Amino acid sequence: MAFKIGLLGLGTVGTGTAQILLNPQGRHPLLQEIEIHRVGVRDLDKSRSVQLPDGILTTYLEEIVNDPEVDIVVEVMGGLEPARTLILKAISSGKHVVTANKAVIARYGDEIFTAANQAGVYVMLEAAVGGGIPVIQPLKQSLGVNRIHAVTGIVNGTTNYILTRMQTEKGEFADILADAQQLGYAEADPSADVDGLDAADKIAILASLAFGGRIKLSDVYCEGIRGVSATDIAYAEKLGFVIKLLAIAKQDRQATAKAPEALQVRVHPTMVPLAHPLASISGVYNAIVVEGEPIGQVMFFGPGAGMGPTASAVVSDIMNVVAVLKSGGQPAKLHPLLSCSHQHYCTIAPMQELVTRFYARFLTYDRPGVIGKLGTSFGNHHVSLESIVQTGFHGTLAEIVVVTHDVREGNFRQALDEIRSLDAIDSIPSILRVL
Amino acid sequence: MAFKIGLLGLGTVGTGTAQILLNPQGRHPLLQEIEIHRVGVRDLDKSRSVQLPDGILTTYLEEIVNDPEVDIVVEVMGGLEPARTLILKAISSGKHVVTANKAVIARYGDEIFTAANQAGVYVMLEAAVGGGIPVIQPLKQSLGVNRIHAVTGIVNGTTNYILTRMQTEKGEFADILADAQQLGYAEADPSADVDGLDAADKIAILASLAFGGRIKLSDVYCEGIRGVSATDIAYAEKLGFVIKLLAIAKQDRQATAKAPEALQVRVHPTMVPLAHPLASISGVYNAIVVEGEPIGQVMFFGPGAGMGPTASAVVSDIMNVVAVLKSGGQPAKLHPLLSCSHQHYCTIAPMQELVTRFYARFLTYDRPGVIGKLGTSFGNHHVSLESIVQTGFHGTLAEIVVVTHDVREGNFRQALDEIRSLDAIDSIPSILRVL
Repeated sequence: MAFKIGLLGLGTVGTGTAQILLNPQGRHPLLQEIEIHRVGVRDLDKSRSVQLPDGILTTYLEEIVNDPEVDIVVEVMGGLEPARTLILKAISSGKHVVTANKAVIARYGDEIFTAANQAGVYVMLEAAVGGGIPVIQPLKQSLGVNRIHAVTGIVNGTTNYILTRMQTEKGEFADILADAQQLGYAEADPSADVDGLDAADKIAILASLAFGGRIKLSDVYCEGIRGVSATDIAYAEKLGFVIKLLAIAKQDRQATAKAPEALQVRVHPTMVPLAHPLASISGVYNAIVVEGEPIGQVMFFGPGAGMGPTASAVVSDIMNVVAVLKSGGQPAKLHPLLSCSHQHYCTIAPMQELVTRFYARFLTYDRPGVIGKLGTSFGNHHVSLESIVQTGFHGTLAEIVVVTHDVREGNFRQALDEIRSLDAIDSIPSILRVL
Repeated sequence: MAFKIGLLGLGTVGTGTAQILLNPQGRHPLLQEIEIHRVGVRDLDKSRSVQLPDGILTTYLEEIVNDPEVDIVVEVMGGLEPARTLILKAISSGKHVVTANKAVIARYGDEIFTAANQAGVYVMLEAAVGGGIPVIQPLKQSLGVNRIHAVTGIVNGTTNYILTRMQTEKGEFADILADAQQLGYAEADPSADVDGLDAADKIAILASLAFGGRIKLSDVYCEGIRGVSATDIAYAEKLGFVIKLLAIAKQDRQATAKAPEALQVRVHPTMVPLAHPLASISGVYNAIVVEGEPIGQVMFFGPGAGMGPTASAVVSDIMNVVAVLKSGGQPAKLHPLLSCSHQHYCTIAPMQELVTRFYARFLTYDRPGVIGKLGTSFGNHHVSLESIVQTGFHGTLAEIVVVTHDVREGNFRQALDEIRSLDAIDSIPSILRVL
């Protein structure tokens, strides 16, 4: 008996998924027991690069999620609606769901997994983070034996491509973005990528799996790469760093008795030491580092997007659901590592409580004693400095670069407020956290 | 109801495993349902760094594998016997088995998995390759939707540590090995590591999972790092390579109609281009690159050995078996991705059929025309050269370094035989394959 797939969407990922399922030779033998039963599309007459059996295309997506013959609904249409509603309807019809939709899961995960547990079905999401890289499955099924300390990733290929080119070509953000748009590496509206929103969705999902609790997306701090300049990339290099847009979820070591389980969950451009495994991840690739006790540090690296890799992740989820169904699992007893059992929301520490190192660049009037004044203001707020260097001039303005030791972000921000009010200060063009 | 573990061995990995299972707080909740029931050791009176419940230690290992209360036997004693016999007895008593024993699995996998399938039990081996890195599970459960082209890994930390130090310190093999032995990074008898035998066991296991067939260990070509010299490491660097001990399993693209599914499975020091993700893996770390269609290239990186990482892998296997048992899987219907269903042996292509690039270093008498003679001999055997350079002198001998284009290894070896017979040739101190 074949397991029947209802595919919602036949765009890039849907086409890639169909291509794998229609050509099972040379792949895992289990794929031969999986059949594409129906495919939901917007336009029946569009020409397709995949040859589907006659009569399985439909524009009535609701029919697919209600079709009694469909075992697994594969949602690869993207966007929030109607994707969310169709996923919920599929679940309530007793279908298992495989989705690549990070936006829906990051926002409606609570609703969706609660419904799935009630209905006794699985909702699988390997393709939602890291494209083809198997990272969701290891987090769900292997790494949880560790006490996870941190998940740190480069999870957005577009921004990593832009930052890599800014670094190698010494170019400015706006120029490289425009070129990336021309080449198809960035969208016409690049906001989801360059403002860090896509990475925020993904780290919310990774944090939820790594730390066993739900994450409120509005609690995720999110800062994109529009403010990163060629000047800062050059300074970073001199100091032994590269600038990467990192998505970080971390046990807050400053946790108090009041909030003992607080997490940091944040996306921002970060100075990464050259010796760190993420420093050498360039171009559109993604990589995710998981740290825990007793495993230490493991990293997953690969193509974070694209038709083939993302379809590989989608089909691996389908195969895993089929494998559980075949091994006689009873619907009432969900596989505890494939289902989502946590119900509470994680407490997220406010950013001012973050303890990290900072890099900041100041433009100042060239007056005697300005370095002393900066130093004093930092000292007033218990910000201990690793280095403070006048690096050169911009016209009549002196440029001063500061790197701190670990400081509480709240204290650092207060020091900056004081510094902004100093007569000698023109502006603070950049502030970056250091990994 | 708790799931009961019978632990065979309380050395490094056994102790790490017990430490995780005895301290489940902050880890996956499923671990709270797992209980260490009995532990088999050689000496009851030895002092232990882990506090076990009273009375569970025994020296009668057979009692553990026959104990009706034990659900899962965890074999972390190492060595071929009695490990193999105990694993087989555990299976025939209907116990699931988790093992870290690459040597037993690489040699007796056929016997063990056949017995396991007959008994309807699982044999799990995440810890056998790559220490804590989840790589077995992704190969079994995710990546099989792809047509796998190659698995290429740095799977032995000791040799990677030695090669990394040879590179950074410009040292010779014998000196660095002696120092590594002093520091505990290499064994007193280093043969299993430096002669590539450990890596051969591991690539046989990875190849079997990636390509869905058993691998005869005696078919795996195995060459260690004793012949790698500081001179070659320096030349490699000049040419844009690093020398790594790679374990490679690859679809043979030269496959003929006669042997259409031949694989290459081999371990040897290899010149790795600096841009390759494996080039930057240094020290005791391991990394495994999997390539396939349509996923492209993914890499798994982390600590390849050590108590904590290996124990993480062992316990993740235990947790996965428990998860399947809890989800109501019937013993008669094994989970098709966790069990081993392939029965045939893969055909391994003989090394002379390998097509690869070569690097070779020659010491020659300084006579006119020697480069021409080398070139002629290579040409006689259809070996096309990328470069042939006289790099300097060793005493009265001239040193010539040759890099070929892709050539059939058999042809290259024939050319070398002809070259050895030339009057102008003193010796060929090194021959390396290029990735």
